[in-house]
Amino acid sequence: MKSFEFLSKKREEKPRTCGITMVLDKGLGLETANSLMDVSGEYVDYLKFGWGTSIVHEREIIKAKVEMYKSYDITPYTGGTLFELAYMNNKLEDFFKEAHDLGFPAIEVSDGSVNIAHENKLEAINKACENGFEVLSEVGKKDPLLDKELSLDERITCMKDELSAGSSLIIVEAREGGKNIGIFDKAGNAKEGEIDYILNNFNGDKLLWEAPNKDQQVFFILKLGNTVNLGNISSDDITSLETIRRGLRGDTVGKI
Amino acid sequence: MKSFEFLSKKREEKPRTCGITMVLDKGLGLETANSLMDVSGEYVDYLKFGWGTSIVHEREIIKAKVEMYKSYDITPYTGGTLFELAYMNNKLEDFFKEAHDLGFPAIEVSDGSVNIAHENKLEAINKACENGFEVLSEVGKKDPLLDKELSLDERITCMKDELSAGSSLIIVEAREGGKNIGIFDKAGNAKEGEIDYILNNFNGDKLLWEAPNKDQQVFFILKLGNTVNLGNISSDDITSLETIRRGLRGDTVGKI
Amino acid sequence: MKSFEFLSKKREEKPRTCGITMVLDKGLGLETANSLMDVSGEYVDYLKFGWGTSIVHEREIIKAKVEMYKSYDITPYTGGTLFELAYMNNKLEDFFKEAHDLGFPAIEVSDGSVNIAHENKLEAINKACENGFEVLSEVGKKDPLLDKELSLDERITCMKDELSAGSSLIIVEAREGGKNIGIFDKAGNAKEGEIDYILNNFNGDKLLWEAPNKDQQVFFILKLGNTVNLGNISSDDITSLETIRRGLRGDTVGKI
Repeated sequence: MKSFEFLSKKREEKPRTCGITMVLDKGLGLETANSLMDVSGEYVDYLKFGWGTSIVHEREIIKAKVEMYKSYDITPYTGGTLFELAYMNNKLEDFFKEAHDLGFPAIEVSDGSVNIAHENKLEAINKACENGFEVLSEVGKKDPLLDKELSLDERITCMKDELSAGSSLIIVEAREGGKNIGIFDKAGNAKEGEIDYILNNFNGDKLLWEAPNKDQQVFFILKLGNTVNLGNISSDDITSLETIRRGLRGDTVGKI
Repeated sequence: MKSFEFLSKKREEKPRTCGITMVLDKGLGLETANSLMDVSGEYVDYLKFGWGTSIVHEREIIKAKVEMYKSYDITPYTGGTLFELAYMNNKLEDFFKEAHDLGFPAIEVSDGSVNIAHENKLEAINKACENGFEVLSEVGKKDPLLDKELSLDERITCMKDELSAGSSLIIVEAREGGKNIGIFDKAGNAKEGEIDYILNNFNGDKLLWEAPNKDQQVFFILKLGNTVNLGNISSDDITSLETIRRGLRGDTVGKI
Repeated sequence: MKSFEFLSKKREEKPRTCGITMVLDKGLGLETANSLMDVSGEYVDYLKFGWGTSIVHEREIIKAKVEMYKSYDITPYTGGTLFELAYMNNKLEDFFKEAHDLGFPAIEVSDGSVNIAHENKLEAINKACENGFEVLSEVGKKDPLLDKELSLDERITCMKDELSAGSSLIIVEAREGGKNIGIFDKAGNAKEGEIDYILNNFNGDKLLWEAPNKDQQVFFILKLGNTVNLGNISSDDITSLETIRRGLRGDTVGKI
């Protein structure tokens, strides 16, 4: 039972089909992460082992963290850069096998740092699905200059094709910083016109917006409602985001 | 015994009547918070369960955290937004009862997000005291536009009335960010003239300044001495603030 | 064995003579720090107990943290401000004895906050070595105005003299913030010309650049290679830095 339950506004419970929260783990200790999930794990749907971080950690620790997150009904998955490194090194088969052995039920497929032809990315999504993984795929480049070369229409085409290829969710890139990338300008403000255009042409329930900063989270929730899917949430901000979604923090009190 | 004790500058010990530190808990795991208090709990006087965070956490965890903090002689209290939500929903009696059952010795009364008539806020402070709570009350609005409508004289009138109504400390709003709010400008710099004006008209020992950023903490300590009461301190910065207060960090070495 | 080992790029292992990472502990709980070292301690070479933080913590906790870090083959050391406070109070002998009793194998000698004549700083480095400590010494002032008065040639002279006096590494000051200090401008961007000038006149392997922000870490690694020594790394960023060093994060994929 929750405390102050008479003040609670309900939200869809797990497994959620919308209002999804994806959290970034950039190297938490196992016990610290466990302590955090004990208080707020029910508000985490997906947990990303950021970029290539898993490569520098012991197998036993990664396995233990994956199991721990799963025990809270969270889907842990490998960061997109890890896929890209495997692709670049012609090690996709080894990558699928190792991700499976470590217990990951899902992986991210992206081309943010490595050039991958559109058909090859779609094929990789397809292969990952065949290997039994849920696939989240990301659209956008990590380099702001390269990212700007991608037109909105090109992004939307990618989204549609990747969804058809088997992705369960399409991630809109914003990195850990959330500035000067994708739909965010240099100050981290969202470009509302671009978001509207995307949503006029693609099913918003299949999008997961990376929104690492609080103002961005508030923006999306006030604009699109608390059923919006948000990602790259810092592990420090899990509870904060849940309260913003429910109108329990100043920014959204009386507005949800 | 402390390490390097021969270099220590003493500070008033608990229970402190000045030089109070209020820390913001925005959803720490129980074990992580306990580990942190074990190293630095003696420097924490008040511990705020931020805004409505308690609502989304299990009763058993909130109770355990409240007990844990109390075991370090810290006064845990409920965030102001929680009070406002209860007020808005006509659930003040339930709120007092639940806060009591969970073990909170204190609550915050504020009107940062919800419109509450001045007399009603005073009455709520009074009722909370009658219900056995220590009351910290906050002056200021969370929305910068609304906050700017409050004149300095109005703020001071509120402070005086709330103190008379039973508040033990008056909190000067600055949120978690500390920018473009209350006595801080858009860059987070303190408006010194306003602070002076307040202190010329109100007892500074009864004020608790929210000062989430290090530069703000240094500013207040250099201006008003290390007996200034400071709040919304990040749990990461407890030790840092104590060293700033004692002239043990570069910013204040030789100046305290 | 590491996970996804077939994607790993090797780095020199401990004890490292280059590519050193120094992490800042500003008051972590013992168990939390232990949990973090369990996942990423192998990537930490030096661990600084920031500025005067040790003074406000219990001896038993400091001793336990020092032992814990050493068990991961990390060299824990006392922050420079602690030395300066001891120097200022004529307590150098007591300081050496206490640092030894607490188990610290190394100390930092600096003059960032206190005026110490050049010869006296060199003598202190020498004495610390005689007392059995490894010495890291820091060049630069914590006050930006005072820091700007130090010319590049003066800095280089200090570096050379301090190395001769016994320092194992020379730290280039950037504080916890990394802005408007030493080789960083107000926006935190590195002044490349100054870095080149220093490296033309001093052995880079003996320098440890404080680089608290990710962009600064990326800058140094892309400019000087992943064997550059970097310090004041936040405990949250240990794994991130290791992946940047190895080309496993977007910023350096394919560039290392």
